[in-house]
Amino acid sequence: MIGAGQLARMTQRAAIDLAVRLEVLAAGPDDPAAAAGTHHIIGPPDDREAIRLLAARNDVLTLDHELVPNTVLQELVDEGHAVVPDPEALVYAQDKLIANTRLADAGVPIARFRPVSKVSEVEEFASQHGWPVVLKAIRMGYDGRGVEIVGTADEAGEVLATGGPWLAEEMVDLAMELAVVVARRPSGDAVTYPVVETVQVDGICHELIMPARIDESVAHRAIELALDLAGGIGAAGIVAVEMFLTTAGDLLVNEFAMRPHNSGHATIEGSVTSQFHNHLRAVLDWPLGDTSMRAPAAAMVNILGAGQSDLAMRSLPAALEVPDASIHLYGKAERRGRKIGHVTALGEDADAALDTARRAADRLKGTG
Amino acid sequence: MIGAGQLARMTQRAAIDLAVRLEVLAAGPDDPAAAAGTHHIIGPPDDREAIRLLAARNDVLTLDHELVPNTVLQELVDEGHAVVPDPEALVYAQDKLIANTRLADAGVPIARFRPVSKVSEVEEFASQHGWPVVLKAIRMGYDGRGVEIVGTADEAGEVLATGGPWLAEEMVDLAMELAVVVARRPSGDAVTYPVVETVQVDGICHELIMPARIDESVAHRAIELALDLAGGIGAAGIVAVEMFLTTAGDLLVNEFAMRPHNSGHATIEGSVTSQFHNHLRAVLDWPLGDTSMRAPAAAMVNILGAGQSDLAMRSLPAALEVPDASIHLYGKAERRGRKIGHVTALGEDADAALDTARRAADRLKGTG
Repeated sequence: MIGAGQLARMTQRAAIDLAVRLEVLAAGPDDPAAAAGTHHIIGPPDDREAIRLLAARNDVLTLDHELVPNTVLQELVDEGHAVVPDPEALVYAQDKLIANTRLADAGVPIARFRPVSKVSEVEEFASQHGWPVVLKAIRMGYDGRGVEIVGTADEAGEVLATGGPWLAEEMVDLAMELAVVVARRPSGDAVTYPVVETVQVDGICHELIMPARIDESVAHRAIELALDLAGGIGAAGIVAVEMFLTTAGDLLVNEFAMRPHNSGHATIEGSVTSQFHNHLRAVLDWPLGDTSMRAPAAAMVNILGAGQSDLAMRSLPAALEVPDASIHLYGKAERRGRKIGHVTALGEDADAALDTARRAADRLKGTG
Repeated sequence: MIGAGQLARMTQRAAIDLAVRLEVLAAGPDDPAAAAGTHHIIGPPDDREAIRLLAARNDVLTLDHELVPNTVLQELVDEGHAVVPDPEALVYAQDKLIANTRLADAGVPIARFRPVSKVSEVEEFASQHGWPVVLKAIRMGYDGRGVEIVGTADEAGEVLATGGPWLAEEMVDLAMELAVVVARRPSGDAVTYPVVETVQVDGICHELIMPARIDESVAHRAIELALDLAGGIGAAGIVAVEMFLTTAGDLLVNEFAMRPHNSGHATIEGSVTSQFHNHLRAVLDWPLGDTSMRAPAAAMVNILGAGQSDLAMRSLPAALEVPDASIHLYGKAERRGRKIGHVTALGEDADAALDTARRAADRLKGTG
């Protein structure tokens, strides 16, 4: 696995169960997955030699983030190495312009968009679709980085001056943000988890509820959309499809990721088979596991660093007093706003589960 | 943790969740816990210097088996190191004569016993309590090793000639074997999991069902017995108390262990908090987790080595086709009769759970 963050760390839990040898490319020995005991090579995520070494030593190469050099992956595929997801699919999770163009061509509902490099292009887009306009970095964005909402041409100009290339997207009237986690084998079999409802603040997932509190017909459409998308682009492994449910009742695909995803964290306790187990099963082309839920509802709350050293670790015993909350800490330094852990709770309904998870999370954050 | 078998391996899963640094004393780098990525020191389990190093580098010292030298542990306690369980309690899990004597003195119901070193003593015991007689090694027995059922004086002589010292125990009329897993903090707080029903073959646990299919009054007595025993001897961490339910309806304490135990494996999926999480929480004197069940019934089937190289690993994809079975492989060489993995399933009732777990287990064993 290229990358050694919390996704690789939680994949290690599943690798232990299945006696799979997981080796990661870590930036350093304290990276969450390396600290959790994965075999590891130390190097930056674009280190060609390290990636080639990882591929040579293992049966299949996969990812915990998409910020990897596709040329190396394609080279490895051409030489006969198994790379999951295939770099031809991965590009859709790396480049929003290529993705949006492909989705629009395939008739997948997405927000209206256009690439922009000049303020006049943003103004022209706004004249058709209104202010504010969402500016998204075409590459390298994640967790809200590379997403800016601009209300005027001046603001647009400031954003366009900072890197790029950029895409303009219309601002949609949002009723709810949803996500569907799909596990798909290279041979095509796929399963999905129940649709989750996410609460995003500044582009970062703060809370989620599984299953989403939406009509069954909407859930059905969301799942079909995610399966079609994953199959259409030939993705394999875990594919997380984030969507907007608009106030008009439309579903628009927002983003997608080709790796275990924050939207799937509640599957560890909430589902018969976790997304991490199913990621391993999918990338190894093994039969996928049951995605049904262990309880009527699950809720997850992310713990973001407060900038206080070891606050969550020091608060852990107090947080463990909350019954029925499952705490996951990633062993990361607590830089402000950084995802350092999460809490999951199951319950008879969403409110009960969310209440439990929040109580433990508040204690970890020193606010409960 | 001294020892690096499957119990330490599964403790590593919990250590990842809680961001606890787990370091083990392993016999070699391929031991199940070392292969799962724990930090490790290589050495035999009675390596005084290695144990002292482990204690010096960590906040608390605990065990994955009881075959450790108590003198070193006592030395460490005297020097102010935290050792859980305390060696004064641990001796009861190491020496059956000391344990039985203490339990009998405390009025805990156990099978009648006496230490024996000569055939004439076995004959005398049999004249009072009948043949067959159970001979148990006073020290170093586990998984059926050191337990012999003898029907005649000649058979007794053969056993007594092979090591020892030995204890004679009356053979009880068994209705069912039960176990209660307790988690107890050094400060005294304790929780128990539901009573489990175990099926033992040649002294090795083959299957278990949680909760045991027994009257509530029997379950209540079993839990009280286990809590009293754990508290009475000052045990801490996970304490597993194995019991006989006799055809007359009596409960007799058979053996106990002071570490995560095979009887608790179904708690990974079956309980809100696994025995491995609660072991860490107990030894760190952190609040214990909820032990209630995630489903009405759980079943676990052990996978024993068939002596065929990598059979379970080769059979894994086929076994993963069984929906709703949770497979755990320990990464061990498949010597005949050795515990190399287990399968857990949850269900609406014991039969449904057992059926699912057995189907996946049969596939892993190449018989399904």
